[in-house]
Amino acid sequence: MSVQLWYWPQIPGRGEFVRLFCEAGEIAYEDMAREQDADALVEHMHAMEGIRPFAPPYIVDGDICIGQTALILQYLSDKEGLGSGEMEVDLGLFQLQIDIADFVEEVHSTHHPVASGQYYADQMEAAYEKAHDFRANRIPKYLIHFDNAVASSGGLFVLGQQWTHVDTSLFHIMEGLDYAFPNYMKSMQGSWPHLEGVQAMVPEIEPLADYLASEHRIEFNENGIFRHYDELDEQ
Amino acid sequence: MSVQLWYWPQIPGRGEFVRLFCEAGEIAYEDMAREQDADALVEHMHAMEGIRPFAPPYIVDGDICIGQTALILQYLSDKEGLGSGEMEVDLGLFQLQIDIADFVEEVHSTHHPVASGQYYADQMEAAYEKAHDFRANRIPKYLIHFDNAVASSGGLFVLGQQWTHVDTSLFHIMEGLDYAFPNYMKSMQGSWPHLEGVQAMVPEIEPLADYLASEHRIEFNENGIFRHYDELDEQ
Repeated sequence: MSVQLWYWPQIPGRGEFVRLFCEAGEIAYEDMAREQDADALVEHMHAMEGIRPFAPPYIVDGDICIGQTALILQYLSDKEGLGSGEMEVDLGLFQLQIDIADFVEEVHSTHHPVASGQYYADQMEAAYEKAHDFRANRIPKYLIHFDNAVASSGGLFVLGQQWTHVDTSLFHIMEGLDYAFPNYMKSMQGSWPHLEGVQAMVPEIEPLADYLASEHRIEFNENGIFRHYDELDEQ
Repeated sequence: MSVQLWYWPQIPGRGEFVRLFCEAGEIAYEDMAREQDADALVEHMHAMEGIRPFAPPYIVDGDICIGQTALILQYLSDKEGLGSGEMEVDLGLFQLQIDIADFVEEVHSTHHPVASGQYYADQMEAAYEKAHDFRANRIPKYLIHFDNAVASSGGLFVLGQQWTHVDTSLFHIMEGLDYAFPNYMKSMQGSWPHLEGVQAMVPEIEPLADYLASEHRIEFNENGIFRHYDELDEQ
C-alpha cells in the first residue's frame, strides 16, 4: 500500500524533501493535494483527531499519521530499510535531518523575518538585514557543519558510498541556495567541497534522475521557502 | 552509568527541557558544563569527530552522542521505558516534541528577529513588530495545537494519566511564556485549559518538585530564550 503525502500543491517547500527521498528510494506515495487541491489538504488536516500535525507536510501510512519532515523521513527510512541498520548511526542521520529542518526555517525567515503571515513587501527592511546576516554567518555555519559530516565518512555521501535521506535533503538545500542566492553561492564555490559532491552525485541516483527530469518536479518559485529576490543576494 | 548533558551553564535554555525530563524520570545525568564551565563545553564540542551536534544541548551516553533537544528526549524516553510502548503513539509524542522545538525557536526570534549573533538592542524595532505578531498569531496557533493534543487524551497529560517528556516540555514553555509575556498570558488565561492543567500537574511529579525547589534550577533570565522585556509584552 502506498503512503499518502499531504503538502501544498504549488511549491516544492518542505514536501520536496519527502518527495526526493521517496523517488530515490522507490517508495510508493500518493501526492494527495496535487491529485486534488489545497482546499482538500486544509479539509483533511482539520478533520483529524488526536495528536495532529502542526502543519504540512505530513504522511498517512495506514493508521499512522506523522508530521514534521525530519520524522517523516526517518520513519520511511526505517520502514524501508534505507538507513545504516545501526541505531547509533541512524541517530546521527536523524540529528542531521533535524539540523536541516532548522536551516530551512532560517531560509524562510530571510524573506519573512517579522511575520510569516504577512507579505514579503511589508517586511523588506528587516529581510534585507536578516539576509545579510544569513549570508555572512548562518549559511557558512550550517554548510560547514554539513560538509564536515560528509567529509567524516570518507566517501561521497554521509554514510560513505550509500546514500540516505540526509543526502537527498542536502542536495535539495544546495539546489535551493543556488536558486535563492546565486551570487553568494557562486562567490563561495569550493568552500564546502563535500556538499558540492553530494549535490553532483544525488541526481545520479537512477530513479531520482527520472523524477528530476519529469513534470512532477515543481520548480522553485517566490511562494516557496527558497525564493530569489535580487536585493537579498547583494554582495 | 549516568548520561552526560552538555549545555551552556548560565541559562535554562534548551538544556532545561532535558533536565526537567531527567529529574522527573529519575534518569541519572551529569550536568557537565555546570560542573566545569562554558569553555569546557566549547572545547568538548570542537574536539568531536564524525557527525557532531550543531549546537548544545547534546548528550553523551557511552559511545553515543546526540544533539537536538527533541531527539535527546525521545532517545532517553525510549531507553528508560518512559514512553507509551506503542510505536504509533510514540511517533505522535516525538512529533509534538519537534513542534515544541519549532515554537522555542520562534520564542527566541521575538528578541532576535534579524541576527542571533547581534544584541537585542540592535534589533529592537524588528523585535517589537515580531513580538506583536507572535502574541497575536503564533502563540495562539501553537498553544491551541498543544491544548488539543492534551484534550484528545481525555486525561491530565498528553497520554492521559501518564506523564511523558512532552508534558515536562509543555510545562516549561508555559512557565517561560508566563515569565516573558506576563501581561499577555494573564489576558489569555483560560484559553488553553488543558495546557494550564499540565502546567499545574507537572510540578506535582515528586522528584521534579524537589528539583524545582532546588538551587540547581536556573531562573529565567535575559540571556536565555524566554526573556522578559516590557516593550515586547505591551497589550
